[in-house]
Amino acid sequence: MSRLDLFIDRMVSQRACLDHAIAETAAMPGPVFELGLGNGRTYHHLREKVSGRPIYVFERAIASHPDSTPPDEMAILGDVRDTLPAALERFGATASLVHADLGGHNRAKNDAFARLISPLVEPLLARGGLMVSSDRMYFDTLTELPLPAGAVPERCFIYSR
Amino acid sequence: MSRLDLFIDRMVSQRACLDHAIAETAAMPGPVFELGLGNGRTYHHLREKVSGRPIYVFERAIASHPDSTPPDEMAILGDVRDTLPAALERFGATASLVHADLGGHNRAKNDAFARLISPLVEPLLARGGLMVSSDRMYFDTLTELPLPAGAVPERCFIYSR
Repeated sequence: MSRLDLFIDRMVSQRACLDHAIAETAAMPGPVFELGLGNGRTYHHLREKVSGRPIYVFERAIASHPDSTPPDEMAILGDVRDTLPAALERFGATASLVHADLGGHNRAKNDAFARLISPLVEPLLARGGLMVSSDRMYFDTLTELPLPAGAVPERCFIYSR
Repeated sequence: MSRLDLFIDRMVSQRACLDHAIAETAAMPGPVFELGLGNGRTYHHLREKVSGRPIYVFERAIASHPDSTPPDEMAILGDVRDTLPAALERFGATASLVHADLGGHNRAKNDAFARLISPLVEPLLARGGLMVSSDRMYFDTLTELPLPAGAVPERCFIYSR
């Protein structure tokens, strides 16, 4: 299996999981949190598919495609070690959907980052809220759900509170 | 349709066209030319799927994933306006497969680049050789072929001599 194959599986799984999670949480009013903007393709997808919920983007520094850049007031800039705890104070446990694509090429580094942010993400989710991640997360109180049709095991993960 | 949807269609189409073109040219001995390495996912795919043919990579400067970096002697470094004409002197019309993913976000810029390199790519192909591109090319003597199953129209193009 080539890196191109793996990458396609990851992108296809991400979309399948997000579309599923967006539909499952459609009746919830709480915000959607996108952790990491990158070039903004996934944010662009969220913006097209999510309606009636604000989408906040957590990023160190915005470097996205112009079509896929959040308005200033929806970008939460800084290190997630600071901005996720601050978001808990600001929003409480209200998020309907959290998405993270840690996205690096280095698996060990991604895994370390997943361990770092898991306890910071966990308290943000509302009851019934979903977390979609391209890497395995390490939650104490969330439940890993079966993947929707079209998603490839190990290429995406969904957790629910 | 979101940028994520478009991107997935482009990657899936690229793989479908490459796999088809690799199979169609499998009996040809001439080299494979990869124009643009980027992070090397497609080169990694070519390396896995192509056998018995050398794969040369044309790039300004190598910045690929370590798993997907060509050996020095297979990298042809420099501006394609110089390296493609030099390759014609070196190899003649022998290429069995040429792949180009111009890959920018700016359609107008990609199109201008496609117009620039089309006449430089065209004479490199052997008779029966195939050119796969993520953008429409501008060839005088090559024929655009129907896409294989799984490829999305306008997301990839195949040309034959």
